[in-house]
Amino acid sequence: MELTASPLAADPSEPALVRRQQATLFTAEQPLTLECGLTLGPITVDFQTYGELNSRRDNAVFICHALTGDSHVAGRRNADDRKPGWWDGFVGPGKGIDTDRFFVICANVLGGCQGTTGPNSLNPATGRPYGPEFPFITVADIVRVHQTLVDSLGIDRLLAAVGGSLGGMQVLEWAARHPERVASAILLASGSRLSAQGIAFNTVGRRAILTDPSFNGGNYYGQAETPRFGLALARMIAHITYLSEQAIEQKFGRRLQHRDQLCYSLTEDTEFQIESYLSYQGKRFVERFDANSYLRLTRAMDYFDMERDHGPMPASLAATAARFLVVSYTTDWLFPTEQSRAIVRSLVQAGRHVTFTELSSPHGHDAFLIESELPMLARLVSPFLDRTWRDLPRA
Amino acid sequence: MELTASPLAADPSEPALVRRQQATLFTAEQPLTLECGLTLGPITVDFQTYGELNSRRDNAVFICHALTGDSHVAGRRNADDRKPGWWDGFVGPGKGIDTDRFFVICANVLGGCQGTTGPNSLNPATGRPYGPEFPFITVADIVRVHQTLVDSLGIDRLLAAVGGSLGGMQVLEWAARHPERVASAILLASGSRLSAQGIAFNTVGRRAILTDPSFNGGNYYGQAETPRFGLALARMIAHITYLSEQAIEQKFGRRLQHRDQLCYSLTEDTEFQIESYLSYQGKRFVERFDANSYLRLTRAMDYFDMERDHGPMPASLAATAARFLVVSYTTDWLFPTEQSRAIVRSLVQAGRHVTFTELSSPHGHDAFLIESELPMLARLVSPFLDRTWRDLPRA
Repeated sequence: MELTASPLAADPSEPALVRRQQATLFTAEQPLTLECGLTLGPITVDFQTYGELNSRRDNAVFICHALTGDSHVAGRRNADDRKPGWWDGFVGPGKGIDTDRFFVICANVLGGCQGTTGPNSLNPATGRPYGPEFPFITVADIVRVHQTLVDSLGIDRLLAAVGGSLGGMQVLEWAARHPERVASAILLASGSRLSAQGIAFNTVGRRAILTDPSFNGGNYYGQAETPRFGLALARMIAHITYLSEQAIEQKFGRRLQHRDQLCYSLTEDTEFQIESYLSYQGKRFVERFDANSYLRLTRAMDYFDMERDHGPMPASLAATAARFLVVSYTTDWLFPTEQSRAIVRSLVQAGRHVTFTELSSPHGHDAFLIESELPMLARLVSPFLDRTWRDLPRA
Repeated sequence: MELTASPLAADPSEPALVRRQQATLFTAEQPLTLECGLTLGPITVDFQTYGELNSRRDNAVFICHALTGDSHVAGRRNADDRKPGWWDGFVGPGKGIDTDRFFVICANVLGGCQGTTGPNSLNPATGRPYGPEFPFITVADIVRVHQTLVDSLGIDRLLAAVGGSLGGMQVLEWAARHPERVASAILLASGSRLSAQGIAFNTVGRRAILTDPSFNGGNYYGQAETPRFGLALARMIAHITYLSEQAIEQKFGRRLQHRDQLCYSLTEDTEFQIESYLSYQGKRFVERFDANSYLRLTRAMDYFDMERDHGPMPASLAATAARFLVVSYTTDWLFPTEQSRAIVRSLVQAGRHVTFTELSSPHGHDAFLIESELPMLARLVSPFLDRTWRDLPRA
């Protein structure tokens, strides 16, 4: 394995800068065989770490990011960076996941577009981006790559795998597929499989991309036009499912955006504030995300199914050594609490250690990412990590 | 007014055929002034009637159809018609709305695409379809046209106005704007205004149409390509909101469409049954609906707001002479029961006669259209119409 890392900030008076690192795993000769049967190699993994790995190498916490997240969990990339990482309120010195004590790793997922090998990466065999040639990947493939990364860092067992939504599915996969490799599993706003309604929303989002003429069958890199209308629309649709009805009502209601009067116009389709907000979310998203990745990662989410992949649930979880913390949110309708309860019931039946909390929040599925919700989450996660750490079997 | 009607079936052994009629209302010289300030005239109204108007002309029931419905409520259009009208299980001799006793009228809405003047109608001023020139209309405009039709039929007061969803909004508009013209108002799965989440779903649907290159700013009549991808996608998105999560789960779950194995393919995006179902719904919809109409009617739905249009709610309903029947469905998340309750509370505060029932159904918003739900609905509506009929003030 080849590791490269950018330098850390030298001046301690500067805000903490994060270390962006890359590892190259697998090779053309010894590629990763994906679940679909195709092979991929070499695979670049782009990741960030926070804190220090201890000498026993047993204080590593692996954060699994969600559908459109990335490895930039906390801190700032450079001195000019205006926004810290997406979980900066939760991960850092003295925070919910305390980087003074734990070595935190977050890696961009396979098939994404943030540095880890994905459709927009150069295919070494052709010298051009993979584009539509990039295989459809699964949660198991994503975790397989991350597990290989963890191997390469010399870590036998993670203190915890943590993730929300699609990240929670990865955590379940870690626990089921690599039962000795995780001492604890923390699942937030997630489930053992996406509901049919969730698949429905994903499929209309993909349809928006696939029917955008600029998608051009996935061959749009280097073109003047990219499928930005389709990708923005897919994001807008998905974004509705991330918010609770209650949150949309409170934040926007039926308020108009620009004026007091309705405008009765075709060209002004953002006259309600909620329309303008969604439009903005779509626009921002296309600046940072790739349509081919979106197609693959939503499919990975659709495909994940604990029972299909690992057999009936109590049994498939019986082998894991992990203790679980499962958290759901009252107004999450993409992964309603009942989904978390089903996992908890299976864990109890499997005789595993499990803590479950349904948190009250108006913020819907996105609650685990919302700043104001993080102190409550920290009050659950921090002592859970403490106890896991204290109870670690030590030779 | 000019009235034309197609002949009824002559042979009584044939299934009942419906009478398709057209009326021409308003003129170029005396047009309808729309809420947006523009004018429209003449306006053709395409409608169907069932049963006979009695000599007192007081047994008319006006059915307000929903977003993509039409005037073809019951019966068959011709001997070869494979499917009866959309509410055939509820409207007919001896049915929930008994056409042996009541004279039933249903008219296609203004701005639609089923015969009543809309974007795909010829603009008499230009000889070409209105297309993007067609004004944005409101629920008040729709009802104003229907009220003029009812006038032209010599009916002073409807026994009832009945409608679900956008149809229910029209019923509210009838009661609030034309308080002496309706003896009763029957609202199903509706509300006094669409929620912000509802607007959000409408806006992403419209966005799908607006960004389809074949939409061409609304100028697509007579073109080789119509915005069928965008319109189908809009329908697919909306269709998800018409079904309950529970109904989708029971009907499709995570079952695959063609095979046991996942296919990991870009070109096969209908591998789950729910995907194939939605895709089919989209495809069928574009065969019968017009994108310009869809843009206008969803906007009319967004715009409708009892309080904005008629002032604070208890007061605005105090003037109506109508007695109300309000029905909601347990799993309807587009117009949740709370929306019906809010109307009922206002009616009670306004001292109006109101009956309210929340029906238990797994079918979500579409429940009022589902065959198996109609007997239960009939058990509410039929006696309600009876009592209204019995209590009619008669000179």
